[in-house]
Amino acid sequence: MKLNLTAGIIPSLNVSAGLLGFFFVKTWTRFLENCGLLKQPFTRQENTVIQTCVVASSGIAFSGGFGSYLFGMSGRIAQESADQPSAKDIKDPALGWIIGFLFVVSFLGLFSVVPLRKIMVIDFKLTYPSGTATAHLINSFHTPEGAKLAKKQVRALGKFFSFSFLWGFFQWFFKAEDNCGFANFPTFGLKAYDNMFFFDFSATYVGVGMICPYIINASVLLGGILSWGLMWPLIETRKNDWYSAELSPKSLHGLQGYKVCKDPKMALPVDGSPPPKTLTVSYDDQRRTQLFLKDQIPTWFAVAGYVVIAAVSTATLPHIFPQLKWYYILVIYACAPTLAFCNAYGCGLTDWSLASTYGKLAIFTIGAWAGAAHGGVLAGLAACGVMMNIVSTASDLMQDFKTGYLTLASPKSMFVSQVIGTAMGCVISPCVFWLFYKAFDDLGLPGSQYPAPYAVVYRNMAILGVEGFSSLPKNCLKLCYIFFCGAILINIFKDVMERKCKKFAKFIPLPMAMAIPFYIGPYFAIDMCVGSLILYVWGRINKAKADAFAPAVASGLICGDGIWTLPSSILALAGVKAPICMRFFSRATSTRIDNFLGS
Amino acid sequence: MKLNLTAGIIPSLNVSAGLLGFFFVKTWTRFLENCGLLKQPFTRQENTVIQTCVVASSGIAFSGGFGSYLFGMSGRIAQESADQPSAKDIKDPALGWIIGFLFVVSFLGLFSVVPLRKIMVIDFKLTYPSGTATAHLINSFHTPEGAKLAKKQVRALGKFFSFSFLWGFFQWFFKAEDNCGFANFPTFGLKAYDNMFFFDFSATYVGVGMICPYIINASVLLGGILSWGLMWPLIETRKNDWYSAELSPKSLHGLQGYKVCKDPKMALPVDGSPPPKTLTVSYDDQRRTQLFLKDQIPTWFAVAGYVVIAAVSTATLPHIFPQLKWYYILVIYACAPTLAFCNAYGCGLTDWSLASTYGKLAIFTIGAWAGAAHGGVLAGLAACGVMMNIVSTASDLMQDFKTGYLTLASPKSMFVSQVIGTAMGCVISPCVFWLFYKAFDDLGLPGSQYPAPYAVVYRNMAILGVEGFSSLPKNCLKLCYIFFCGAILINIFKDVMERKCKKFAKFIPLPMAMAIPFYIGPYFAIDMCVGSLILYVWGRINKAKADAFAPAVASGLICGDGIWTLPSSILALAGVKAPICMRFFSRATSTRIDNFLGS
Repeated sequence: MKLNLTAGIIPSLNVSAGLLGFFFVKTWTRFLENCGLLKQPFTRQENTVIQTCVVASSGIAFSGGFGSYLFGMSGRIAQESADQPSAKDIKDPALGWIIGFLFVVSFLGLFSVVPLRKIMVIDFKLTYPSGTATAHLINSFHTPEGAKLAKKQVRALGKFFSFSFLWGFFQWFFKAEDNCGFANFPTFGLKAYDNMFFFDFSATYVGVGMICPYIINASVLLGGILSWGLMWPLIETRKNDWYSAELSPKSLHGLQGYKVCKDPKMALPVDGSPPPKTLTVSYDDQRRTQLFLKDQIPTWFAVAGYVVIAAVSTATLPHIFPQLKWYYILVIYACAPTLAFCNAYGCGLTDWSLASTYGKLAIFTIGAWAGAAHGGVLAGLAACGVMMNIVSTASDLMQDFKTGYLTLASPKSMFVSQVIGTAMGCVISPCVFWLFYKAFDDLGLPGSQYPAPYAVVYRNMAILGVEGFSSLPKNCLKLCYIFFCGAILINIFKDVMERKCKKFAKFIPLPMAMAIPFYIGPYFAIDMCVGSLILYVWGRINKAKADAFAPAVASGLICGDGIWTLPSSILALAGVKAPICMRFFSRATSTRIDNFLGS
Repeated sequence: MKLNLTAGIIPSLNVSAGLLGFFFVKTWTRFLENCGLLKQPFTRQENTVIQTCVVASSGIAFSGGFGSYLFGMSGRIAQESADQPSAKDIKDPALGWIIGFLFVVSFLGLFSVVPLRKIMVIDFKLTYPSGTATAHLINSFHTPEGAKLAKKQVRALGKFFSFSFLWGFFQWFFKAEDNCGFANFPTFGLKAYDNMFFFDFSATYVGVGMICPYIINASVLLGGILSWGLMWPLIETRKNDWYSAELSPKSLHGLQGYKVCKDPKMALPVDGSPPPKTLTVSYDDQRRTQLFLKDQIPTWFAVAGYVVIAAVSTATLPHIFPQLKWYYILVIYACAPTLAFCNAYGCGLTDWSLASTYGKLAIFTIGAWAGAAHGGVLAGLAACGVMMNIVSTASDLMQDFKTGYLTLASPKSMFVSQVIGTAMGCVISPCVFWLFYKAFDDLGLPGSQYPAPYAVVYRNMAILGVEGFSSLPKNCLKLCYIFFCGAILINIFKDVMERKCKKFAKFIPLPMAMAIPFYIGPYFAIDMCVGSLILYVWGRINKAKADAFAPAVASGLICGDGIWTLPSSILALAGVKAPICMRFFSRATSTRIDNFLGS
């Protein structure tokens, strides 16, 4: 919460939760064992269940929008933003309604995930790189004695875990400010860097690239080249024609509008989209599938749960936000499962959750629908909250289901743990936020200790949103439709080829994977392709070894970097800043700086 | 010459000469073969002989001092320097006397090297990393068909050659200015960087570290810690006591004085110093030794040659420089072989030639002896030239003799080739300089196209030098004597241990290797230790493979970086500068720069 209110970022805690869960419970069971009181052994199932509970609970700090949409409703933020706030556009935080709001919206994502579970994990065999890496880590803690290959894999994982952790640590020293450090390394030159083409030395995404199939990485790169390499530069040449040249680069009236509008929700995979991985099923996988399906949560239960909670929240939410009419909420709940599916699918392919992008979509559509006169700003922000809660939970918990699948954890226990975690989060997060809100009078003000930078960004988006589609720049919607149809056509084509001519099908890129760099930029695609390259070269040198150890190495890379977020967060909370700033300038700027420093 | 006059640096051309020599002559012999005119095959002996000739010839551009002592004598440079120049302190360049001067001093180094050859290469088994790497490169071009291991080694060399070359190329992009790029990477923090402790990502010195024995690398690091880690910071605390605090950090009256005065000439290895490498002699080495000794150049010939040339030059030099009395020259010639031995020995251990440091020593001693009133400035500069020519040739050509030893080239042909190369250099270099001097009127002026930055530095040193030892800061000479005795004692101790207790002897550091970082800084010691570390880890994982491939890998690293100097020199000559500047600032400075760039 503190990081959320200072930098606006909440680090992913999957890996840390897995590791710390193991460490604390192992210490506890050791202690019990020594006292002769240990009744139940500590297995990887417990480890996974603890992990998913922590993730579900801490996820609320993000999806609750305390640093974004929810705080953006307050009068304090309204004063900072562009417009003249009227009473109907403001709702100041209060502990009661926040907890109530979270309780009626946070469980929807959970129920929408349950039916998708089998499709994503077993039918589509999606990779969920973070989830897979966490599973490898947890499995490595609980390796049975005597398993020789497993031990070697654990050693490989440990080695790359340490490397990745130390690399994260080393990088930290050079990142005194946001624009410093290895994450801003213009590997391919400054011009390419301006278009987000660079290798950012992230061990995580190199690991993700090693876990993802080649076609995903190639698709992501292709999408990056198409968007940041071709389309944005081309659209920018139409600056005065399609949109005003005087707008800031971040304005949604300008170039940013095209980017946001061409987000992955456009690219639904068509029915029966083929699993991107090969279909040979190992003994391990058979056993995992068996266990994953044995303890089934019935679909009727999930659907019923979703409908009941949706009904409750449709009835309740208009009482909290009178601006948010019940029929807006119904529409959101009708669309949400599809979008949750999209986000979980995209996350399974590339490890990126685009929950906040779906939230922004809700701001625009519902805000425009309500209109400025009827409190569209607040309606948009509230709709954003509803949407983000569903979509973000869907992808987070699907990651955990993948972890559970790989660690042979019972799906029912996972589900129960997630329910408990979510309920905890719905109480704990608002309380913590309330503490901050009461303790710091300048919370949310720029320049203060807790500026909550995204709160005002979300509010400004909502103000823009009430203007509706007309606020989008020229040809933006047209492009949007073209890409929507294009994505569906490619998927149909891929599907047909899959049946007619398997050889070619695997070379057809996936529109879903292609869409992600449109908004984020292609730099992570380059990381992932580096991972692919490493895997390819390794496979050429020693196929057997690469097959046996690549997942362990990739998991080590992801987990080491993931665990580093923990000490780095602690350093950030303690106010310790890195001592050195590594920066990159053009020659001309560098000369100017020399003169400045010299004088 | 152009680089020498612009940046003041002449890159080492050993590797490039080896590669280009192979390429051109191979093309020529292919052509002759196709015409049926080929009588003599092109073997590695020819390759090595060509290489040594090029190195001998191009070395004169450095040791001739066209960018340093020789040009520093001119009136143009005298006007830039601190003092009021009188006629007796000035000698303007003229083609005639320069060629004459070079002819009477340049061959002395060559003759002094010949008797040392057997001691250095066979008895001491010194590594000469650059020479060894060049030899591996040349050998790899001429691998006999069917040699399986050799082919694998060539492939390893090729792989790391490409890597190192591309790494050099990549680094180039980030070095828009001198203070930019990977060579200024504060790996261990800014404080450590200020004391020259950092890893500068030089593939060359990592490769050198892999070729040098562990004890050398450890000694260099120890020397670096002793000097830059302990002594300089300690001496700096005596700032107001031992020397004036107002002096610039580069002034020889201050801290720099201690550094220059504690140079490696103090650390003569005592007689019979043990070879640092193991004594097991392979078949290859036996054959190499046999060939190396078969075509012996008799010692009487070398000694007679040295004496004759020394006599001629003692008679001639006072006619060129009336300020340089004949007895100064005699003294220089009496000491020179010892110092040449020291430099060749140090270069054999660590790949660093400290020729310019010995030159500076001559400036100080001879300059002080002559005194300001008797043209000490010019006498010092001329003495510097005499000394540098001997000492620099000694180490350069010894590198080539090591290459010749490893490529089974006949020592006689090597010697003849070096004589020819030196003679060529004595004519070509002055002529090229003369062209520049006549073509550019502003040659040597600061801010011009060819500022020859070191010319004025050398002149200023000479001006300081005439003040004699009194100009050195307090306790400087005392420390000098202590270290001189210490080095001899350590060597005697090591020698005794070698006979009494071999186990411990190998853990005693070498004073010669320790002395080098005193002046240069310990950063290259860190590079070398990284090389050691790689070799050690590799040896632990797979001893046989490490033994077979480490020299090839190390040679690849050295040669790739070496060849990169060729295109980078061409880029520099063409005036192409790198586009990006990678810099490192403290957090405070970085914030200041942000404000500056923002405003």
